[in-house]
Amino acid sequence: MSGDLGAEVVVRAASTCLERHPRLKLILVGDQELLTGLVTRIVGDEPRLSIRAASEVVGMSEAPADALRKKKDSSMRVAIDLVKEGAAAACVSAGNTGALMATAKFVLKMLPGIDRPAILAELPSIGGTVHMLDLGANTSCSAEQLFQFAVMGSIVTGDIRAIDRPRVALLNIGVEDTKGHETVKAAAAMLQASSLNYVGYIEGNEIFAGKTDVVVTDGFTGNVALKTMEGTVGLASHYLKSAFTRNWFAKLQAVLAGPVLRSLAVRMDSRNYNGASLVGLNGIVIKSHGSADSVAFQHAIETALLEVKNQVPEQIGSLLKQEAA
Amino acid sequence: MSGDLGAEVVVRAASTCLERHPRLKLILVGDQELLTGLVTRIVGDEPRLSIRAASEVVGMSEAPADALRKKKDSSMRVAIDLVKEGAAAACVSAGNTGALMATAKFVLKMLPGIDRPAILAELPSIGGTVHMLDLGANTSCSAEQLFQFAVMGSIVTGDIRAIDRPRVALLNIGVEDTKGHETVKAAAAMLQASSLNYVGYIEGNEIFAGKTDVVVTDGFTGNVALKTMEGTVGLASHYLKSAFTRNWFAKLQAVLAGPVLRSLAVRMDSRNYNGASLVGLNGIVIKSHGSADSVAFQHAIETALLEVKNQVPEQIGSLLKQEAA
Repeated sequence: MSGDLGAEVVVRAASTCLERHPRLKLILVGDQELLTGLVTRIVGDEPRLSIRAASEVVGMSEAPADALRKKKDSSMRVAIDLVKEGAAAACVSAGNTGALMATAKFVLKMLPGIDRPAILAELPSIGGTVHMLDLGANTSCSAEQLFQFAVMGSIVTGDIRAIDRPRVALLNIGVEDTKGHETVKAAAAMLQASSLNYVGYIEGNEIFAGKTDVVVTDGFTGNVALKTMEGTVGLASHYLKSAFTRNWFAKLQAVLAGPVLRSLAVRMDSRNYNGASLVGLNGIVIKSHGSADSVAFQHAIETALLEVKNQVPEQIGSLLKQEAA
Repeated sequence: MSGDLGAEVVVRAASTCLERHPRLKLILVGDQELLTGLVTRIVGDEPRLSIRAASEVVGMSEAPADALRKKKDSSMRVAIDLVKEGAAAACVSAGNTGALMATAKFVLKMLPGIDRPAILAELPSIGGTVHMLDLGANTSCSAEQLFQFAVMGSIVTGDIRAIDRPRVALLNIGVEDTKGHETVKAAAAMLQASSLNYVGYIEGNEIFAGKTDVVVTDGFTGNVALKTMEGTVGLASHYLKSAFTRNWFAKLQAVLAGPVLRSLAVRMDSRNYNGASLVGLNGIVIKSHGSADSVAFQHAIETALLEVKNQVPEQIGSLLKQEAA
């Protein structure tokens, strides 16, 4: 029901996913009348798609504590309750991130030894993709939390990209042992002593360089890095647009270079990397970008599907137990 | 003498700067024989260019404390001593950043009320440029330090870009008052109560959006953001190169789109933004990127020139005094 573009985006994405995955079943949670209308118009008769009524919607800027306390029949809350009850294997939402985290934490609880969920997403990199966490859930992090992020990131990345022992790096402002603050140094020591495939520090310019499969950082730095990437792509697009419209010759060049620039746009397009995992929960919750269109939302649903197939929370729980032993 | 490419880059940049600025005088500090040879070959007879001998060179990965204690006749130390003695108005170096900061702090001392230098640089943005600090000098920062960065950034940006009351923003992970850690919130309160033109929080994607003239953040976050920008440009270049060489038609497109892509490359090229200021010192010290070529090093010399003309340290000192009153 939420997100910036409303429920239609979700229904269109659901329709595509049901076509692509013959055994998938989806439950749409929210305003019964609205959703029934959209399903009739967009999907038609489809036994694998059902609707579960919820009478409230959490606002995009509502305080998480308010959403949790006052809106017990919100689409967000009902969807997470379905996961808790075992009626759904995962929840996908484009709603208010803070409210989603607070509600998921309250209803599903955390895995033993994890304090708060972290936000994990897949980003483009040279030669493939890279997973990075935390992207904004934890403003300040202890060394122990950074270590837990590494464990969780290693599991999810290994599952989603089907690689054995993914390489894990810590984001820092230099690669020498002396660089960085005490927290990142302490986390490095813990990772060196662990069973993870820890490859050391990387700097911001190496996030996309294909040198690691998982990038671990605190939520403040991770969020700034992610958004700086978006801002840089925006700046380059702005320059390209203004350069290609300067005169008729430049416009002609733009037409001729169109296919290549479009392929670049697709590869740098954050929609193709939509669907961040809230990891550390005792259940699967995927956060779609609030401005996601149906292509992006479909990617978020498919991320949930992969995590369900791989039983991600169970795997994280057992690796954490093993590391603690 | 230092930097990744050696002294020739510096001599070539000096030659261009002397041509462009008829009243400029430059002193090259380092190995007398080597520099004399380069000057004879590249510049010829030029009374505004002199050489000051220094027998040692600080290594790019040498510990700052070692450089400071053991190499009292390094080119870096002698150059900073010249500023201290008043024989030079500014020092420009492509050497080891940590050693440069430690030596400059020891020799020149800090302005009253400033603890450590911060690294300030000019970056591209939509509609012009943006100045950002700290880019890596201070791994952890207090709210007071962030406030001092804002004062220093405001002065330097106003001078270099000749704008009155530059807009100053704090980098955060959301624009609402509730977002971020305690340090950034406390700095926001100090800025709101100050005489600066404080415009509030911005997120990573807005650094280059033209919404502010100065971006203030701690050295860890700032360094990661700067390098993430570089990494994103690198990723986009990689995609473009591979797309434009896929087949003969794509190669043809690349030739046709060449001029526009080259203009993009120039605008995103960090060489045109080379020359970070070490602000907060009682003197002018400009850090050139270690891998700077002569074009980039020339830009660093010209940044020093602008700061000299504007008496940046004196201006920062008096604004700090005014804010403290």
